[in-house]
Amino acid sequence: MAKNQQDEFSLIEKYFQPLTRGHEAARALLDDVALVEDLIITNDMLIAGVHFLPEDDLALVARKALRVNISDLTAKGAKAFGYFLSIAWPFNISETDMARFVEGLRLDGDYYDLALLGGDTTRHRKADAPLTISVTMLGHAGGARVPSRSGAQAGDYLYVTGVIGDAGLGLKVLQGQLSLDAQAQLALMGNYYLPSPPVALVAAIGQYARASLDISDGLLADAAHLAKASQMDINFHADKMPFSSAAKLWLSEQPDQQAALMSLLSGGDDYQTLLAIAPQDALEIEALAQKAEIKLTRIGEAQKPKANPAIRLWSDKGQEIPISQSGYQHF
Amino acid sequence: MAKNQQDEFSLIEKYFQPLTRGHEAARALLDDVALVEDLIITNDMLIAGVHFLPEDDLALVARKALRVNISDLTAKGAKAFGYFLSIAWPFNISETDMARFVEGLRLDGDYYDLALLGGDTTRHRKADAPLTISVTMLGHAGGARVPSRSGAQAGDYLYVTGVIGDAGLGLKVLQGQLSLDAQAQLALMGNYYLPSPPVALVAAIGQYARASLDISDGLLADAAHLAKASQMDINFHADKMPFSSAAKLWLSEQPDQQAALMSLLSGGDDYQTLLAIAPQDALEIEALAQKAEIKLTRIGEAQKPKANPAIRLWSDKGQEIPISQSGYQHF
Repeated sequence: MAKNQQDEFSLIEKYFQPLTRGHEAARALLDDVALVEDLIITNDMLIAGVHFLPEDDLALVARKALRVNISDLTAKGAKAFGYFLSIAWPFNISETDMARFVEGLRLDGDYYDLALLGGDTTRHRKADAPLTISVTMLGHAGGARVPSRSGAQAGDYLYVTGVIGDAGLGLKVLQGQLSLDAQAQLALMGNYYLPSPPVALVAAIGQYARASLDISDGLLADAAHLAKASQMDINFHADKMPFSSAAKLWLSEQPDQQAALMSLLSGGDDYQTLLAIAPQDALEIEALAQKAEIKLTRIGEAQKPKANPAIRLWSDKGQEIPISQSGYQHF
Repeated sequence: MAKNQQDEFSLIEKYFQPLTRGHEAARALLDDVALVEDLIITNDMLIAGVHFLPEDDLALVARKALRVNISDLTAKGAKAFGYFLSIAWPFNISETDMARFVEGLRLDGDYYDLALLGGDTTRHRKADAPLTISVTMLGHAGGARVPSRSGAQAGDYLYVTGVIGDAGLGLKVLQGQLSLDAQAQLALMGNYYLPSPPVALVAAIGQYARASLDISDGLLADAAHLAKASQMDINFHADKMPFSSAAKLWLSEQPDQQAALMSLLSGGDDYQTLLAIAPQDALEIEALAQKAEIKLTRIGEAQKPKANPAIRLWSDKGQEIPISQSGYQHF
């Protein structure tokens, strides 16, 4: 199951976990993917008004629908090759809009080398029922293993790919909640519309990650899942966080620095990968990331927990920064 | 792609077929399933108000969501073993309703030996957006081959499993459009709510069917897909059609016999399998069906077409009965 907010998480545990009937492939629904024979499979649903804005360009929506699933596979060291697509179109969908959607699928199908394998298209009967898209994506392992969330060990370094917080700011720009210079706004909106999961790093993730997951609900919320599954504390360093220049500019202008920092670290829609790497593998994966031109930043360490596993955030002066927000609520 | 009405079919051909990028697994979207390595995969979406009634018991809806996908796999000679599930719940869903839905999944998961493998649950933000369910189901071939729609040859016998037309009448009962005695009404509604794909026949279908598909949009509409894909005429015999006693009772009471017959043969929601069988294999598959306690009825023959492939319906007196309706429109 993909979005693991507290509420949703307990519903999944109570109601859906028993339905796996102990099948190993399901990974007890504690991961974003299932392993079926040699395939790694993930499934995400996007709904207008929940995961994207009803007025968004449908070509961008289509590409995002593919990319959020690619992100799940990438974080598990898997290369996507094909997908199933079910769509419930709005009642009054025009053929022009459908063609825009398909154009987005075509573009990213070419870019990521993906084949549409099957699916189902239906039109809603209710006038204002929202466009609803379900993608099931299939991939092959790029490395030796398929890391789960539970393998992090004490002393492991925590790495994150790409930048964090831009997509959340991009959504704020789109909702008219913040203004920056035009260049910065464009960059942020672009990051919201078109996430760039670190596909060039899949083989390295499969080879070196002891634990990993994709960051879709905000770094802090998703890191908490990894911490809980691995039974580890995670210490993050605020000054090491990979913020873009647009995000840094925004941060510098905020009156409440702590609230602004929390906002970046729990904004959601990043679709980057969080990795736990053994210290002896750090140089190797850093070199591979550099070769693959994927930004990879060491932002923390795992530590044996004293009580329940927790996420802690530290300033460069060694002071603990209280964590006050959780991730985006899809449920 | 699962529902192949004329409109939908041409949209799929124009917009979605190119997205397969020639990947063999997709079967050019001309089948209900894709073949990925050793897996046979299908994907269907169900929407309240389109595929089921908004007031239906959610346990029955859940079971139907599984069964329509099992039907697709069964018709391809494949045994389902697991599924991915995405759900968009209505905004005001109660935990009681969710629990009902899950109870349905549990019941049929046990009955059909299925594991939930993953998925995604989200809640709609709009007050009256409909419950939307997407199931991606995985299976293994039960026989030697995975029959497509295109293998029927001249002289092949056409067989159908189960009964035809009951589910369509069941929907009419539920919509208050027809009344029969209570016993008959219950039987028909039961057939609408809980289709029974012929799972006990999967191995035989995989071994003997030259062409096959599941009947979801009405026998005549789905047979037309097989006829077109196989480039064959199909001759059906009206007096051979497997109607239940409730359907026969209803038919006997209709003033317009021909319209009533068309209604049964194009009602949709049957979720049985239509098979083209070589004459030399007829006795064998009939014996296997008897052993498996699956009703299997020979209802027609394939014939080399004179012009475009067509479906023809004949009376027991050898007169052609005009075909006037097509299948249920999901689009």
